[in-house]
Amino acid sequence: MKKIGILGSTGSIGTQTLDVLGQLDGKFKVKYLTAYGNAHLLSQQALKFKPDTVCIINKEKKEELETYLQNSSIKITSGRSALLELSSRTDVDLVMNGLVGASGMEPTICSIKSGVDVALSNKESLVMAGKIINNLLQESSSNLYPVDSEHSAIWQCLTGEDNTQIKKLILTGSGGPFRKKDKNDFRTITLEDALQHPNWNMGNKITIDSATMMNKGLEVIEAYWLFGMNIDQIDIIIHPQSIIHSMVEFNDGSVKAQLGLPNMKIPIQYALTYPNHLPANFESLDLINIGSISFEKPDLEKFPCIRLSYEALQEGGSFPIVLNIANDTAVTSFLNKHIQFNDIPRLIENALNKHTFIKEPNMKNIIELSHWTESYVHNQIAAIA
Amino acid sequence: MKKIGILGSTGSIGTQTLDVLGQLDGKFKVKYLTAYGNAHLLSQQALKFKPDTVCIINKEKKEELETYLQNSSIKITSGRSALLELSSRTDVDLVMNGLVGASGMEPTICSIKSGVDVALSNKESLVMAGKIINNLLQESSSNLYPVDSEHSAIWQCLTGEDNTQIKKLILTGSGGPFRKKDKNDFRTITLEDALQHPNWNMGNKITIDSATMMNKGLEVIEAYWLFGMNIDQIDIIIHPQSIIHSMVEFNDGSVKAQLGLPNMKIPIQYALTYPNHLPANFESLDLINIGSISFEKPDLEKFPCIRLSYEALQEGGSFPIVLNIANDTAVTSFLNKHIQFNDIPRLIENALNKHTFIKEPNMKNIIELSHWTESYVHNQIAAIA
Repeated sequence: MKKIGILGSTGSIGTQTLDVLGQLDGKFKVKYLTAYGNAHLLSQQALKFKPDTVCIINKEKKEELETYLQNSSIKITSGRSALLELSSRTDVDLVMNGLVGASGMEPTICSIKSGVDVALSNKESLVMAGKIINNLLQESSSNLYPVDSEHSAIWQCLTGEDNTQIKKLILTGSGGPFRKKDKNDFRTITLEDALQHPNWNMGNKITIDSATMMNKGLEVIEAYWLFGMNIDQIDIIIHPQSIIHSMVEFNDGSVKAQLGLPNMKIPIQYALTYPNHLPANFESLDLINIGSISFEKPDLEKFPCIRLSYEALQEGGSFPIVLNIANDTAVTSFLNKHIQFNDIPRLIENALNKHTFIKEPNMKNIIELSHWTESYVHNQIAAIA
Repeated sequence: MKKIGILGSTGSIGTQTLDVLGQLDGKFKVKYLTAYGNAHLLSQQALKFKPDTVCIINKEKKEELETYLQNSSIKITSGRSALLELSSRTDVDLVMNGLVGASGMEPTICSIKSGVDVALSNKESLVMAGKIINNLLQESSSNLYPVDSEHSAIWQCLTGEDNTQIKKLILTGSGGPFRKKDKNDFRTITLEDALQHPNWNMGNKITIDSATMMNKGLEVIEAYWLFGMNIDQIDIIIHPQSIIHSMVEFNDGSVKAQLGLPNMKIPIQYALTYPNHLPANFESLDLINIGSISFEKPDLEKFPCIRLSYEALQEGGSFPIVLNIANDTAVTSFLNKHIQFNDIPRLIENALNKHTFIKEPNMKNIIELSHWTESYVHNQIAAIA
């Protein structure tokens, strides 16, 4: 039985991971669960999956959680340091990192340092600390398994293949809810508009990232670190139906693709059960019913976040860190209705231009740079308001 | 340097194989070439690739070939027995079997018995003698590498995967030139109409098989033997653009597909250089330029050859042999304008119904049954005329 810890168990990836584990009866033992602040759901999950420990990051919610779990023997911890302690445990085989945003980076590093495999949904880990993580992986027995549907697709296409024979990775993206919207009408986009993703049902942060297409930009950076490609070997193609989850073109012109209905449980289960495709009750892809699928060029004018991501990856060093933190901060403000949709790329570009470049940032640099970026963007937002 | 023999070097697969070998400079040494009757082209190929032996099946062309090659030291042989002798040579690493129709079966068996790997374009080998070939492969060091674009696609999708975790193979087919034609207008189809394949440039026999969709039926039988599936695990889907060359659905609902421009040189090179995807000058797939691709259900009413193929595979034993020989005979007659397009499935169905069933046909049975089927179909054709 494989022992697993789940970071962010009450979020979109976390709850779907537990659904998958529920179906894979008897194959996994959940050792710990962590959540930010949803004490009620966390307690229900704990009573069902019986981990030895749960952690609630928001300390104010600890008492509520203790009330729910008063009749159980599950250990209750709280706060960020408890999260990092759990991520460092060596008595699990696999950690599912379903944390949102930059806060997911340190736990990834803790698990790798502990020699534990990581199923990584938190792409920000690689965006901010790709080089550090790849160096740690070289010294560790830990493996990194992508959970993002695009990277899972590429990973599956590369099964049994020689990575040196890749010509190109082709990341597909739906184009989000504003693919057909006129650039001039972007000013009037509301939060409610931006939260309507055409295909995927995801958490709020990533749904906004899909609307700005920053999500695709971050995925380019993630793919760069995961698969060891050159920047010009990573392409984006718009595929509005989200059926082909990504592709690999090899040196002989042969292209392999992974397809499926837009259902995150497929890549989640694959990361949990790799290299197996275990039976599941997920609905099958029916291409006859779907009828046709299409492809378009991404519009870098309409979606400057894509351009900013490629530029940040090209510049390297501190640029992707600032890109990611500025985006996290701007998206949170947009979700709180403090800024407009068009402000998001503007705030990011300003932060990128204004920051002091560091060529090979270490963990201390990353944390300091994150603070600088967050407060710079907040100051900019205050100036807008 | 890999030593290779090419059966059917002047045909569509043979000439493309030599084109590919020309690009893979220094990696292969051609040891022999065989052709049915095109002495002039065979001699040109021989002078360029310098095999030690060439074979022309049609003995009447031997003298012409000798004239062309009088200044060379290449050994010239002729006739079917010489073909089988070459196919049995053990001093090659790989045989490309690009022969057309049932005549390709025995050479496949000779090469496997000699422990030589076979790149198999001749699907009739497996349709007629799938069980015998699979049994021989178990005792031999020989491997069978599919060249058909559909089977190459599935083979590539299965790289590194566990075949027991397959839910389904999905063979794609363009639907041929008559996909949109009304069934009632099939009576008036001319040979010229049937030779217009929308996507692929292939030999005449396989082009007619694509028009009747018997090609897809034969591919179902080929896939059955190549990949060890149950019949109900092999589906056909119509995909008019021929971009996805086939797919595999795994038990977790994940689908892998292989894509590319409709260019037989990609699967040919892959069969030659497996497991490598070596650099080639083939045009890259540009999905943005293609724009969209579509999928339809195959119409078994319009294309009874598909139904006949599934039924023959289900009945097993002698049925696929009769199916294949009756089809070979009928298609040859159609190419000679002796019968109508609609006669092809009728002649095949009659032969299937009238033959004496053999449960486990041996090679002698296959040859006798082939003679019976050929003469039965010829008699039926004489009765039509």
